[in-house]
Amino acid sequence: MGSMPQATKRRVLVIGSGGVGTMAAYALEKGGKATVTAVLRSNYDAVQRSGFTISSLDHGEIQGWRPIRNSIPDVSQGRLKPYDFVVVTTKNIADVPPGVADMIAPAITPGHTAITLLQNGLNIERPIVAAFPSSPVLSGISFIGATEGPLGTIKHDNHDELSVGAFLSSSSSYSYCNGGTDKTDVAKAEAAARLFVDMYSSCPGVDCAYEPDVAFSRWRKLLYNASFNSVAAILRMDTSRMRISEHVIDNLIRPIMLEIIKVAGAAGTPLPSELVDKFIVIDNFEAFFKPSMFQDIESGGFIEFENIVGEPLREAERLGVETPTLRVVYGLLKGLQWQTMEKKGLVKVPVASEPGLKYGGSK
Amino acid sequence: MGSMPQATKRRVLVIGSGGVGTMAAYALEKGGKATVTAVLRSNYDAVQRSGFTISSLDHGEIQGWRPIRNSIPDVSQGRLKPYDFVVVTTKNIADVPPGVADMIAPAITPGHTAITLLQNGLNIERPIVAAFPSSPVLSGISFIGATEGPLGTIKHDNHDELSVGAFLSSSSSYSYCNGGTDKTDVAKAEAAARLFVDMYSSCPGVDCAYEPDVAFSRWRKLLYNASFNSVAAILRMDTSRMRISEHVIDNLIRPIMLEIIKVAGAAGTPLPSELVDKFIVIDNFEAFFKPSMFQDIESGGFIEFENIVGEPLREAERLGVETPTLRVVYGLLKGLQWQTMEKKGLVKVPVASEPGLKYGGSK
Repeated sequence: MGSMPQATKRRVLVIGSGGVGTMAAYALEKGGKATVTAVLRSNYDAVQRSGFTISSLDHGEIQGWRPIRNSIPDVSQGRLKPYDFVVVTTKNIADVPPGVADMIAPAITPGHTAITLLQNGLNIERPIVAAFPSSPVLSGISFIGATEGPLGTIKHDNHDELSVGAFLSSSSSYSYCNGGTDKTDVAKAEAAARLFVDMYSSCPGVDCAYEPDVAFSRWRKLLYNASFNSVAAILRMDTSRMRISEHVIDNLIRPIMLEIIKVAGAAGTPLPSELVDKFIVIDNFEAFFKPSMFQDIESGGFIEFENIVGEPLREAERLGVETPTLRVVYGLLKGLQWQTMEKKGLVKVPVASEPGLKYGGSK
Repeated sequence: MGSMPQATKRRVLVIGSGGVGTMAAYALEKGGKATVTAVLRSNYDAVQRSGFTISSLDHGEIQGWRPIRNSIPDVSQGRLKPYDFVVVTTKNIADVPPGVADMIAPAITPGHTAITLLQNGLNIERPIVAAFPSSPVLSGISFIGATEGPLGTIKHDNHDELSVGAFLSSSSSYSYCNGGTDKTDVAKAEAAARLFVDMYSSCPGVDCAYEPDVAFSRWRKLLYNASFNSVAAILRMDTSRMRISEHVIDNLIRPIMLEIIKVAGAAGTPLPSELVDKFIVIDNFEAFFKPSMFQDIESGGFIEFENIVGEPLREAERLGVETPTLRVVYGLLKGLQWQTMEKKGLVKVPVASEPGLKYGGSK
């Protein structure tokens, strides 16, 4: 990619087009350095009919934008030109197949396509790196406020702040990278990340920065997600009410944050302890904000708890760090996910005990 | 009391008349050794109009039974004869005033009335003993299945098994009693418990036994309540689904039970570890049973989590026993209770941050 002339637009495929995905697709297109195609599922028919309707604090009112397709393109037949970037903005539900790697595979040209994971959680790059070892894999951490109302209608009401870096980076403290890596691969990944930042930053109104230490930014965001996002889903409580109650912060949120700091430190990514008090009050109080997993529980959707709580917990176990709060929270989130699986028909509930059921018998 | 002639019926006041309370009142009356008055609140009007309608597997169909009043009687004026027994069958919501001691005070004749707490949880006798030091205080542990459908209509569908003993007992391992107690008080309390068992057992069809070791029976029932009842309330999941999922048992129920066994042991009440596997499958699988705190959450009522989880947790802290699972579960139940308090107008949620709010500020 680095050898392409400056004037050539990069071919970008954005997979997943909710609030975050649509605004990323729009910013990349508007920046003028990329030709964007968005892959839609639930909102495809609506957008095919009328285009996206976007009301954005950064970009104003947009109507009729329609850069879409309804399936992952297959580049293996040679009829489509390779994508320079595939940007994944779907939820990352690690415990419900198919995984991200399987989903995006048809669109990846090995050795050419860079993959940007604009998703929450820890270790999400591992299955991607394993499936596409010759592709640069990039981390995107977004602090945008953008939600889809009616299908195809996006309300963008909090500024678009994005940090992008390479998982494989010379300056990253990421445990994954400690195994030693090829310098050429590192340079290639870092170059792809800088190129992505350049494309994205070309759009007026957005704030996209190169992140040299992906590990730090991911563990840092986990401070919020492992605590507020998890407890909000379990209690169905917004973050302002947690702060009013005080004890939810003292008994649950703060202990989880302190456990995340312990694990991150043991994993080679020290986080400043001042972040705890900062993050406890980071949400705009007046917003009575419902974090994403709470919204998912309300709408009956799956929660991405495996990467938000499961992975830090497994890191803790690997490193011998005690995380008792995180462990209980994990068990409860897994219970919530099980209930969603039942509602979606993925687990069967027998009317009576069955042979083979570990806890089936009575008395 | 011991000096009363055999033929004299005891005066019994039953406070709280849901499923459990009504069936206890009925059994005591039907046994022929007690004259029972039941104090009703929510269902008073319905029962005043038509009497209780009871459909009972032990007693058959009963209609029009009406031994009721709508307030706690005040015996201090001397117009009412003293009650020999006051039986408390309300929920024990320790964190929402008024407490049980305040509520029952007008009906207690000091030095005469014995108080039977037919309620869940640990250390529930402490405020009662403190308020009425000259009254025998008895523990009732009920394994009945009885629920109120429409107001005043009781379905009694699981056999009435009751164990009653004195909190203050020569053979109890109860920590409360280890402080050393007057032998006369112990003998008086034990005699009152045996008398209560005799009254109750006189009713055909019920199974009421004298419990010499109240501590054991209370910690034993906590094995179930601290685990299944708590997790059911948090996840809104019946106990059969927990068993089908398996991991809810392995990650949450079993760890809580093991923590309860540790605390009970440290408190001087060793529980056999075989109880864990027995209690995990104790519910009839086909019933898809919803424990009481889950039912309370569904109906918007308060949960009695302070005596079911808070007290064992405080015992653990006092004794230096680690109970990490119980600690997190306690924090979550307290969050659920806070939400109920908000719904009932007992806590105020400001629209914006206010001075004095510990976690009010933004950034």
